[in-house]
Amino acid sequence: MRMVDVIEKKRDGHELSTEEIQFFIDGYTAGSIPDYQISALTMAIFFQGMTEKERADLTMAMVKSGDQIDLSAIEGVKVDKHSTGGVGDTTTLVLGPLVAALGVPVAKMSGRGLGHTGGTIDKLEAVEGFHVEIDNEEFINLVNKNKIAVIGQSGNLTPADKKLYSLRDVTATVDSIPLIASSIMSKKIAAGADAIVLDVKTGAGAFMKTIEDSRELAKAMVGIGNNVGRRTMAVISDMSQPLGFAIGNALEVKEAIDTLKGEGPEDLTELCLTLGSHMVFLAGKAESLGEARSKLEEVIKNGSALETFKVFLASQGGDASVVDDPSKLPQAKYKFELEAKEAGYVSEIVADEVGTAAMLLGAGRATKESEIDLAVGLLLRKKIGDKVEKGESLLTIYSNFEDVNEVKEMLYENIKISSEHVDAPILVHEEITE
Amino acid sequence: MRMVDVIEKKRDGHELSTEEIQFFIDGYTAGSIPDYQISALTMAIFFQGMTEKERADLTMAMVKSGDQIDLSAIEGVKVDKHSTGGVGDTTTLVLGPLVAALGVPVAKMSGRGLGHTGGTIDKLEAVEGFHVEIDNEEFINLVNKNKIAVIGQSGNLTPADKKLYSLRDVTATVDSIPLIASSIMSKKIAAGADAIVLDVKTGAGAFMKTIEDSRELAKAMVGIGNNVGRRTMAVISDMSQPLGFAIGNALEVKEAIDTLKGEGPEDLTELCLTLGSHMVFLAGKAESLGEARSKLEEVIKNGSALETFKVFLASQGGDASVVDDPSKLPQAKYKFELEAKEAGYVSEIVADEVGTAAMLLGAGRATKESEIDLAVGLLLRKKIGDKVEKGESLLTIYSNFEDVNEVKEMLYENIKISSEHVDAPILVHEEITE
Repeated sequence: MRMVDVIEKKRDGHELSTEEIQFFIDGYTAGSIPDYQISALTMAIFFQGMTEKERADLTMAMVKSGDQIDLSAIEGVKVDKHSTGGVGDTTTLVLGPLVAALGVPVAKMSGRGLGHTGGTIDKLEAVEGFHVEIDNEEFINLVNKNKIAVIGQSGNLTPADKKLYSLRDVTATVDSIPLIASSIMSKKIAAGADAIVLDVKTGAGAFMKTIEDSRELAKAMVGIGNNVGRRTMAVISDMSQPLGFAIGNALEVKEAIDTLKGEGPEDLTELCLTLGSHMVFLAGKAESLGEARSKLEEVIKNGSALETFKVFLASQGGDASVVDDPSKLPQAKYKFELEAKEAGYVSEIVADEVGTAAMLLGAGRATKESEIDLAVGLLLRKKIGDKVEKGESLLTIYSNFEDVNEVKEMLYENIKISSEHVDAPILVHEEITE
Repeated sequence: MRMVDVIEKKRDGHELSTEEIQFFIDGYTAGSIPDYQISALTMAIFFQGMTEKERADLTMAMVKSGDQIDLSAIEGVKVDKHSTGGVGDTTTLVLGPLVAALGVPVAKMSGRGLGHTGGTIDKLEAVEGFHVEIDNEEFINLVNKNKIAVIGQSGNLTPADKKLYSLRDVTATVDSIPLIASSIMSKKIAAGADAIVLDVKTGAGAFMKTIEDSRELAKAMVGIGNNVGRRTMAVISDMSQPLGFAIGNALEVKEAIDTLKGEGPEDLTELCLTLGSHMVFLAGKAESLGEARSKLEEVIKNGSALETFKVFLASQGGDASVVDDPSKLPQAKYKFELEAKEAGYVSEIVADEVGTAAMLLGAGRATKESEIDLAVGLLLRKKIGDKVEKGESLLTIYSNFEDVNEVKEMLYENIKISSEHVDAPILVHEEITE
């Protein structure tokens, strides 16, 4: 088989065979096929797309390019949740204990990564003593015992995807739905998921800005999952404004605790119940989505979701007393209110710019070397559609430095107030199961 | 400027600026822009095409990437002819002396290359003593004196094009009209042409198989030439069967001599008169194409074209007496006739397969290291439309080895005889001047 023929075939709009896809992924991983042939191929894919079969083949070829996590020693259906990323997305912290409280095994492998705030592990480390440096055996034992544990990423998962992504990033071939979908799905499958619930964000703060693109990506991923024997569904949720109120590590842990108590922000709670219902249903712990939702509401109400969170934290060395006394979480030195300059209705909160403001405070990493300040961040007081008086606080800035003028200016530019009433955005646009 | 942005701009169908094109050609030539970004860009160009302005900019950026031949010391308008390549194409050998006899300066830089037969230099070396190892000064003096000289390729012409072509060859981006057109035109312009006559071949034996593709390529090249101040025109000519009768080096020299005497094959003669008329006209040596043609016919009739050929050969060390006694050219040991297996009309002579048969005899190079046998080749006795009796010779095989069964078999497969009359193909399809 010659790589140039594979490129030409795709260029001319033909379907690549399973063997051809295996050939280029294996060759690229091994280094026998050079970058310049792969970048020509990915550009051809950008224009010609990939069929359902090709997407499934590409995903599985990338899965097989490296280690695969074996979670078979964990009882039950391992349902993983994945979000395409947004601002102030505290869902993972809430969903883990929430579905675990219903017996759904949550075996989470997580990372740190770059972004407006830290990754799930960074956030959890805001709880004193909490650590993810546990070995595989302990991880599996903890999940079987508590139904929830988090471990740091280890092993050589989907090296083909890593190499491919780096190349796509510098050759303008990131924006290809089949390539994005295969990349995400290969990581989830290599990490051992039996079933997958996807939270595809849409809007200004999301990677996919329009509902059409979000839908296409969601359908692509659901198609791959179901084609390779992993029951998969997707929710398309709003990211035109940040989710919940908190943007920052300790602030989001506090918000997760509030939500598990039934006192969280309305949108975050609703999205967690929606995603959680699908997770519970796919795990076979409820006969219907309605039943799943009722059960989730019940474990919030009766405190067992919160209790599961405490046990989870304590089992990995964390000080579980923060759940009852969140003031034990890292606290910022300074608090500043961002006062509305005029009265009206909040009409826009540009999610990614507000996220960048949080990063400027130190809540996230701009480069791999950046240090995260777990205490700092933003807490929204108003969301789109809310009425606001002149001088009233739009949000609170939690900072460890005194001069936040730059951050304030940035926030003023990205939070718009209108004199006319504005509707709150729709939170859950669609649920896609095939 | 970031290369990834240039790729994205082209990917999304926008026109690249002169600066952006200069940027990627300079960076690629210098090695600061890697292959994998260029191959992604060329694939994007494959799908999105290039505007007239982009094509002209790309051509000139490639011209400037290396040395440019300065022919200003040669008097007159330097008109170069370029053929997109075919089988048995003896036009260059005929056209040089033919237009030089009318005072059109022919300053030919030529190569050897791969193919069914050798390049122009290989063919001319069938004349004993002829050599192209002359220096620039002698070359220019010879052209000024005799109006014709040939020199081997030297200098670092269009290194960007060389690098780009090698990359396109392994990334399935050869078949892009704007890239093919810019590649050809950059080489002609760097070699010092003031005006360019293009012979774009069409049909089974040509790079462009259909008249539509040939027309598109012709228009692309003519557009570039006229945009960058080189008067350019193109002829689209038939290559469904080989041109003329001879395929092979010494055989083609003999055929060129016959043609300069007015005794050549009808199609070769007609094409040379057509291309030659445009060269003479562009060089300002005739007021109209009709006048140019009459003058060309005159220099064939009065012997001055043949005389010019003799002077040209002798001036570069060649034994000019071959013109009067072609038996002095290298002769093959064996001659075999390919006898028709049935009576009828020749309906097909698959040009590239017949060319490959000549290469198997040793007439051309399969790899850079191959030795050419100047004596061997094929001489067609029948062309498409000709009537043939059973047992009559379709062609003569000139070989230096006795067993030519494989070659014969290949030829029988690619020369078809029909029981019904077949028209000879049209020789000159179109002449494109803008």
